[in-house]
Amino acid sequence: MQPEVNGADDFLASALVSKSPLTPDAGAFLMEREESASYDVERVPLAALPNWHLGDRLTRSDGKFFTVEGLSVRTDFGPLAQWSQPIIVQPEIGILGIIVKRFDGVLHFLMQAKMEPGNTAFVQYAATVQATQSNYRRVHGGRATPYLEYFLEGTRRRVLFDQLLSEHGFWYLNKRNRNMIVEVPEDEDVTVEDDFTWLTLGQLRHQLQLGNRVNMNARTVLSGIAYGNGDGTRPSYAEQPDAFHADLLASHHTPFTDTHLAATLTWLFDQKATYSLDVRRTSLADMDEWICDDDSIRHRDGRIFDIIGMSVKATSREVGTWYQPMLEPRPDNAVALICQRRGGVLHFLLQATVQPGLTDRLELGPTIQFSPGYHRGPQDFPPLTPYLDAPASWTRLDTIQSEDGGRFSQADTRHLVVEIPEDHTLEAPENYRWLTLGQLGHLTRFGYHVNVEARSLAACLL
Amino acid sequence: MQPEVNGADDFLASALVSKSPLTPDAGAFLMEREESASYDVERVPLAALPNWHLGDRLTRSDGKFFTVEGLSVRTDFGPLAQWSQPIIVQPEIGILGIIVKRFDGVLHFLMQAKMEPGNTAFVQYAATVQATQSNYRRVHGGRATPYLEYFLEGTRRRVLFDQLLSEHGFWYLNKRNRNMIVEVPEDEDVTVEDDFTWLTLGQLRHQLQLGNRVNMNARTVLSGIAYGNGDGTRPSYAEQPDAFHADLLASHHTPFTDTHLAATLTWLFDQKATYSLDVRRTSLADMDEWICDDDSIRHRDGRIFDIIGMSVKATSREVGTWYQPMLEPRPDNAVALICQRRGGVLHFLLQATVQPGLTDRLELGPTIQFSPGYHRGPQDFPPLTPYLDAPASWTRLDTIQSEDGGRFSQADTRHLVVEIPEDHTLEAPENYRWLTLGQLGHLTRFGYHVNVEARSLAACLL
Repeated sequence: MQPEVNGADDFLASALVSKSPLTPDAGAFLMEREESASYDVERVPLAALPNWHLGDRLTRSDGKFFTVEGLSVRTDFGPLAQWSQPIIVQPEIGILGIIVKRFDGVLHFLMQAKMEPGNTAFVQYAATVQATQSNYRRVHGGRATPYLEYFLEGTRRRVLFDQLLSEHGFWYLNKRNRNMIVEVPEDEDVTVEDDFTWLTLGQLRHQLQLGNRVNMNARTVLSGIAYGNGDGTRPSYAEQPDAFHADLLASHHTPFTDTHLAATLTWLFDQKATYSLDVRRTSLADMDEWICDDDSIRHRDGRIFDIIGMSVKATSREVGTWYQPMLEPRPDNAVALICQRRGGVLHFLLQATVQPGLTDRLELGPTIQFSPGYHRGPQDFPPLTPYLDAPASWTRLDTIQSEDGGRFSQADTRHLVVEIPEDHTLEAPENYRWLTLGQLGHLTRFGYHVNVEARSLAACLL
Repeated sequence: MQPEVNGADDFLASALVSKSPLTPDAGAFLMEREESASYDVERVPLAALPNWHLGDRLTRSDGKFFTVEGLSVRTDFGPLAQWSQPIIVQPEIGILGIIVKRFDGVLHFLMQAKMEPGNTAFVQYAATVQATQSNYRRVHGGRATPYLEYFLEGTRRRVLFDQLLSEHGFWYLNKRNRNMIVEVPEDEDVTVEDDFTWLTLGQLRHQLQLGNRVNMNARTVLSGIAYGNGDGTRPSYAEQPDAFHADLLASHHTPFTDTHLAATLTWLFDQKATYSLDVRRTSLADMDEWICDDDSIRHRDGRIFDIIGMSVKATSREVGTWYQPMLEPRPDNAVALICQRRGGVLHFLLQATVQPGLTDRLELGPTIQFSPGYHRGPQDFPPLTPYLDAPASWTRLDTIQSEDGGRFSQADTRHLVVEIPEDHTLEAPENYRWLTLGQLGHLTRFGYHVNVEARSLAACLL
């Protein structure tokens, strides 16, 4: 039973449709929206942010929205046993929701061309609704969130996917969002607001492969999609754009037994029990190795990330002008999934990984999660890092994707998928495991088992 | 699919066996073990605990085992928007595991008659293994944990149940334990150590109904049990000891659709998103309204609970003599499940409830969770509290059960099940929902959805 998944056959059919009369050119739509508004994003000192105060923590004067606080971390996972870092605290559950609806029998996704000030590519496709509680209760003023009513309790909705999923575990403390896909009946009209348009999953797939076109919040929602077998018959792999996509579809489809899934969960619980994590919120002033001043919060060696101030002027967002802190990581972050044909089916190597902000301590992450800013030097690099330089003939995907541009500045992450040859031997530590995409998707739909970095990659493998 | 459940038919068959030659008298076995050892438990001032230090937190000098810290809580759930309290912090995942094995075709559970110093009934049936990581890594010295090897990674085991489940959310911060049931093949010998014995589920059921015979850790493991239909045929309800147990079995068995389950999960996520919770660990000294001195940590009005010192001398536990802090709640705690026959099937009313220490903020709890020590007065009593005084003719279960006697002193909780007549109208707020036992069990096996108080009651309804 997969209680949180519906519409799997419809998703697969939509993935095979790469053109739609509703949005003839998905790239042009984005560009047009970007040109229709002006944005002026500027770095400012933290002390220049109106209504924000830097003390024991960085906080808005009304105590709402989010705070940046100190975090003291102890763990026996990874090369560092103890460190301090700032972390974003926002103890509320936001909604990331996509409305889908059939047109001429094909499922379309209502996507928003949305400006986010932190992104290097300003305007990207976002979920229909991307709202923190502060947003939709309008803590920072602004207009009502359109389409929110489709996702709230008590409305008529056919829920295809609904799960609480974790956010970035190094940058957010215990943050999770509700990821939803809701289907509206074919005969019900949905008004298409400015900046919104209907895309097939095939169109989204193409935008995902281009990179920096589909934002992080949309990607995590899309990672909840399961593919059905198309009315129970074997789907035509020939309809896939290339041999690798045929392999991906087979990896989504390959059946697995309950026993195998139970063994995977038992292994995952073993990993959760193996490693310890103790985090403690502290005053920003109590963080070793960090400098907090009127300009920014930054590591004394320039490592990890900075907390900076931003002023944003835009005509297309809920509020015309605003100021906020943002987290700016060191550049050159990369996430990679290594895959290999095993027993004829493509399997992906996931790493059980501890992150200080995860609600449940440890989740499955990509094979390699490489954040050079975190490492003191090559001795701290994670296992398998050399595969980031795999030969081009092994590379199946290599794109740049953004993190949440509402909180993170210039946070571009290279997304890499490497297929190693069948006869290549890879030695992975015990906290790594090979999974098909079907198994990975199933674990995603279970809840707090797959981290946002792995989900972001999985969305690129639809 | 229920990936974490196996052996459902065997569990049901074992539940119907109330006598076993392996343990002719389960009550006598307990009494015998209690008489075979001597226990001397004495309250001492916190300052008299060797190796423990009371400062910003109460901690062991080696930093291991557990700490007691201050917690500042803000929430919009319940009558109090803000409070401070001490809380036990032990950021490691323990193992609560029961070995089961068939004898003459009937599944038996290897239970330990275990002394826990906090319990009013000293010796109770515990799981085969009940070990924190500190325990089994022998932080506080002592003997190795017997049978631990059956539950560790890499051993040959047939896992019937394996899930991380939450502990008491008002007393522990983010504590969860791994609950496991592991089957050993019939032809494999298992040495029965002193204090251990094999019981059928029918025998355990009887001990549960007597009260204070099966400890909290064993109850939470048992709550993971699902009943099968007995080889797919309709089981004989006539074999049940009484009409109420026949109704319970039917409530376990009544099929539910994936759609219904998905609707329940969506409702539960709605509840998680409706309420906010923000907790912050603080110095004990920073807690409003609390007194911390050499004697104890206590609320200035005598409410909530005390943190006290205990000295324990025993001959039957891992360590002969030890000292530790304990949490002693105010007396007269009660948990109650209200049930009602709806559409011919017994349904139970669960409350979605926020507790400060829960890993995921909100879980399903009993209909009524009544902790008089927490309330300033009757104005703070939870909804439906008057049902605690329901007429005797409605009462289906009324026993005392202990909380974890390794951490909590004199923590007896009344467990009550009240069946209201079919024509009785009960008005419950929106955060309550009627579920069959089959649905509740399914949610339990999903992970962090059902709190330990509700699971403890569910174990009494096997």
